[in-house]
Amino acid sequence: MRIVIPLYEGFTALDAVGPYEVFRLVPGAEVVFAGPEPGPVRDAPGHLALVADVALSAIDSCDVLLVPGGPATRRLVHDDALTGWIRRVHATTAWTTSVCTGALLLGATGMLQGLRATTHWAAADVLEGFGASYTAERVVFQGKIVTAAGVSSGIDMALALAERLAGRTVAEAIQLAIEYDPRPPFDSGSLTKAPQKVKDFVESGGLRR
Amino acid sequence: MRIVIPLYEGFTALDAVGPYEVFRLVPGAEVVFAGPEPGPVRDAPGHLALVADVALSAIDSCDVLLVPGGPATRRLVHDDALTGWIRRVHATTAWTTSVCTGALLLGATGMLQGLRATTHWAAADVLEGFGASYTAERVVFQGKIVTAAGVSSGIDMALALAERLAGRTVAEAIQLAIEYDPRPPFDSGSLTKAPQKVKDFVESGGLRR
Repeated sequence: MRIVIPLYEGFTALDAVGPYEVFRLVPGAEVVFAGPEPGPVRDAPGHLALVADVALSAIDSCDVLLVPGGPATRRLVHDDALTGWIRRVHATTAWTTSVCTGALLLGATGMLQGLRATTHWAAADVLEGFGASYTAERVVFQGKIVTAAGVSSGIDMALALAERLAGRTVAEAIQLAIEYDPRPPFDSGSLTKAPQKVKDFVESGGLRR
Repeated sequence: MRIVIPLYEGFTALDAVGPYEVFRLVPGAEVVFAGPEPGPVRDAPGHLALVADVALSAIDSCDVLLVPGGPATRRLVHDDALTGWIRRVHATTAWTTSVCTGALLLGATGMLQGLRATTHWAAADVLEGFGASYTAERVVFQGKIVTAAGVSSGIDMALALAERLAGRTVAEAIQLAIEYDPRPPFDSGSLTKAPQKVKDFVESGGLRR
């Protein structure tokens, strides 16, 4: 089973690495990081590069496609080379998935037209521009297309998909192996839970990106 | 504020990248990935390499040290060059932290002697061999030393530390930015919660590593 994660300059690292850590433990899975060309690909703030071992052009099919998000997606929805590659590979997959604003890249191919989908809360309007119905859920399955909400949600999505790929016992075993028993110290992880002053702080650009 | 994450061949990627995605959003933080030498460093299964931008030998101090875990730690506890580096840098930090079996590397320096600490559940006995008292908690603060449990726990630890570094509003804003409102599809993320057949499957080596 080949699982491909395409990288591009300006992606968000956890979008890719959260699901990766789940998928790599699925028996029989080979996870491949791909990029514009083989070599390091920098994330959005630029502190971290992941290595793409294969060029996108060398991949024309896979069993599971996982498209991570990142600030660069706002621009890349207009990149016909990337969205064309996603569209072609999607035609071959058993599952096509996204994390965070990776959903915008799926949207740009047209594949979300008329479907429910999720993305980072701050990108809901952009997603709807591609004909999808934004759904404020953590993970949304629509046929073989699976979208996950912002950044950290990819872990939840990958576990849900692991069950479908390898069964419940394996998926629960992976959860135990990565000791995923989350205990956030606060409860501000969604727009409906975060205090107003926290939302104001984020929306005023208080966090650098 | 300089935050350093040392990488070594055979680390676990999410141990490093989970906290990274939190720390990089702390205002004023510079996160540096370091390695034996600058260049790609492969994780445990070898599907993924992260790039170390700086050699460990070029770093003699930092504000926050985060030591990720991985299968290689069982061997690296005997690597005097690495543990010596950790010991020297620890003398300069405001916070010294570990995720998963990164705690074994802290333990090998002697710094956990007589302290409560946590690590991946499967490494509890090894941790106790370094004079620490294994504590089955998600995150354990002991003075400036902070240990986190297995793999995914680094996200919880980093958010708790972000509050101490930058205040509650900033930490909650980071949680919102990474949409960390976890919804695991199962509830088998700890030894006390996983069904017996899942524990048996993991302990019999059912998951490749």
